[in-house]
Amino acid sequence: MTAPLHEAHPTGAGRALPNTQQGMRRRNLASVMHTVSAEGPLSRAAVASRIGLTRAAVSTLVDELIRSGLLEELGPERPGRVGRPGSALAVSGHGPAGIGAEIGVDHLAVCAVDLRGEVRARAVRHGANRGRAAGPVIEELDALVRKVVAEAEREGLWPAGLAVAVPGLVARDSRTVVRAPNLDWRDTDLAELLPADFPLTVGNEADFGALAELWLGDGTPRDFLHVSAEIGIGAAVVVDGGLLRGTRGFAGELGHVPVEPNGPECPCGGRGCLEQYAGEEAVLRAAGLEPGEDRVGLLATRAAQGDEDVRRALRDAGTALGIALTGAVNLLDPESVVLGGALAGLAPWLLPSLEAELDRRTAGPACPVSVSRLGPEGPLLGAAHSVVRGVLDDPVAVAERA
Amino acid sequence: MTAPLHEAHPTGAGRALPNTQQGMRRRNLASVMHTVSAEGPLSRAAVASRIGLTRAAVSTLVDELIRSGLLEELGPERPGRVGRPGSALAVSGHGPAGIGAEIGVDHLAVCAVDLRGEVRARAVRHGANRGRAAGPVIEELDALVRKVVAEAEREGLWPAGLAVAVPGLVARDSRTVVRAPNLDWRDTDLAELLPADFPLTVGNEADFGALAELWLGDGTPRDFLHVSAEIGIGAAVVVDGGLLRGTRGFAGELGHVPVEPNGPECPCGGRGCLEQYAGEEAVLRAAGLEPGEDRVGLLATRAAQGDEDVRRALRDAGTALGIALTGAVNLLDPESVVLGGALAGLAPWLLPSLEAELDRRTAGPACPVSVSRLGPEGPLLGAAHSVVRGVLDDPVAVAERA
Repeated sequence: MTAPLHEAHPTGAGRALPNTQQGMRRRNLASVMHTVSAEGPLSRAAVASRIGLTRAAVSTLVDELIRSGLLEELGPERPGRVGRPGSALAVSGHGPAGIGAEIGVDHLAVCAVDLRGEVRARAVRHGANRGRAAGPVIEELDALVRKVVAEAEREGLWPAGLAVAVPGLVARDSRTVVRAPNLDWRDTDLAELLPADFPLTVGNEADFGALAELWLGDGTPRDFLHVSAEIGIGAAVVVDGGLLRGTRGFAGELGHVPVEPNGPECPCGGRGCLEQYAGEEAVLRAAGLEPGEDRVGLLATRAAQGDEDVRRALRDAGTALGIALTGAVNLLDPESVVLGGALAGLAPWLLPSLEAELDRRTAGPACPVSVSRLGPEGPLLGAAHSVVRGVLDDPVAVAERA
Repeated sequence: MTAPLHEAHPTGAGRALPNTQQGMRRRNLASVMHTVSAEGPLSRAAVASRIGLTRAAVSTLVDELIRSGLLEELGPERPGRVGRPGSALAVSGHGPAGIGAEIGVDHLAVCAVDLRGEVRARAVRHGANRGRAAGPVIEELDALVRKVVAEAEREGLWPAGLAVAVPGLVARDSRTVVRAPNLDWRDTDLAELLPADFPLTVGNEADFGALAELWLGDGTPRDFLHVSAEIGIGAAVVVDGGLLRGTRGFAGELGHVPVEPNGPECPCGGRGCLEQYAGEEAVLRAAGLEPGEDRVGLLATRAAQGDEDVRRALRDAGTALGIALTGAVNLLDPESVVLGGALAGLAPWLLPSLEAELDRRTAGPACPVSVSRLGPEGPLLGAAHSVVRGVLDDPVAVAERA
């Protein structure tokens, strides 16, 4: 159940590789790609010492990866060193690219990320998607994808796959949005709506946001709880560097953890769920504001201006988050909690009461809470990078499709 | 962070094996052992077809496992079939055994389990351990271990390792009981107290109980939440067939999930923790009973006799469990919840209110709740079987020590 999201990806055969010569070769190709990606540029000898294979074995693997366009030689290392000069290896900036897309409540976004992790093309369209049928939204998204792919191709890249982040529950190992209350979508199969030009993955935005934090964050541990919000409150649990996805793919529903057992009714059927205290709409209501388009911006501006109603509403939301997170921390024992997405922008006013509540209630030393630097960019970047990681995890599959 | 508990075991090198010929051989030996253990007796040809290797490759592996005393040949299969008669293979009933031990609040228990999963020796001592220093308790435990090992050796077995289940928090990858409030132990290193005759693992009783459920339960899924109780309430999260252990090894502290944010104070520092409503002592108090030695037995007897105070106390405890489990199910999306340990014996009176609460509060179809058939035997069996699994996972390491 804990697996990087890209395992649902057609190229992500990483852990399923059999214990045969062929399976071993594929695993070793992946080790070379991951090592060069994480630590490159590196010589063949350095790669060999890092992954514990002979120099000769590594050379064979590297030659194959260069032929497939996944690695590049940067030319001979500077002279003056002992022995035959080696050539430094780097992952290719002209090979496959991961295309990430995000369907937000108020925007659509697409980007292309190369194997080096750089964003090489990007397109955004603002406008409310809430209540619109999936068909026209996906048509617009597809137009953005085509634009970004064309731009990437002009730079010598080719799309290895498309990953779409959605604000809703996605059935495990499927491309079906089971429920996206803030879009009003139900059982929507994106694979039916999007042209099948390259492999497609669909995932929850909180999950992709957490993966972005894992892969791109500054010193993010391999075990953490990532809490984010757009209109609802989402969370994702990262365990040993992989997502905890849940039996149906629905893990991380922090928004429906009971905070006050007899609190207000929630559309989910429960009572006193966290979302009733710390969801954007609940906070706006508590502060006496109308929900508009830039909800987080409005709250952040008012709080910064010293609006006492907004500050009190955010303080109370922080307390509710602290209660729900106490339960989560007791169950999961993560190394840290990371506030991402819209919550990152509201952190200055949420954190004091949140941390006080968590400290007070947690047995032993309290779990540290940090704020994501990626903020609302997380889900889009996480989606694109999940495709890139899929390539690193099984370079053979991608090379065969190229 | 999700890993079978036996990975902390010195023999449990399973996942860390490198992608070399030697690593591949060790992984394939483990595949043969697991296949024969799960489906045996099997012929060499059947094993080969199950694990996807050639018959010749499997024969080499099998010969090595027979020489090491881990597999046995049961003699030729019945004649009349086409081709050279094959010999059926089974895991050995005379090789290594797993020794499991349990330090309970009111008892000590030890057993030996062979590679076939059969309990071959067992010893129990009743008497309160609460408030006793660790030294004398471990001395008594060691005497029971020696007795069980001697009995196992008379049957031709030899101890591959000892795993000890304790009612407290155990630091990850260590043998140190960080905190066992119901024994009044703190930072107790069992490795210092127990003679080092064979490899030692120490784990939380709820974790071992969950593993027993996973390995021995009837149709237990690979993703579930196991809730148990002795005096405190413990839980363990099993994800994809492995324990979710947490950064420090403390995951599964369901007992300190807040159920009523402003409820009674808990010794943990929190307020309104589940243990304040559904712990044995809280239930006894609510029913107007004094805590004695057989607390669960007393509650079960009174409830069965129709004692309305006890039934009401258990009903309320079920409601509190339902609230805490709603949060856990939302976060983890398990396939089921299993009530084990002492809770299994009280299930008839806990379940109705527990399930009603969970159904009412859970988005989508409610998570099914089942009752463990292992009950209080779980932790002891789980401990012994964790040693056995360690042998199956890396037969080479054990054979080298034999």
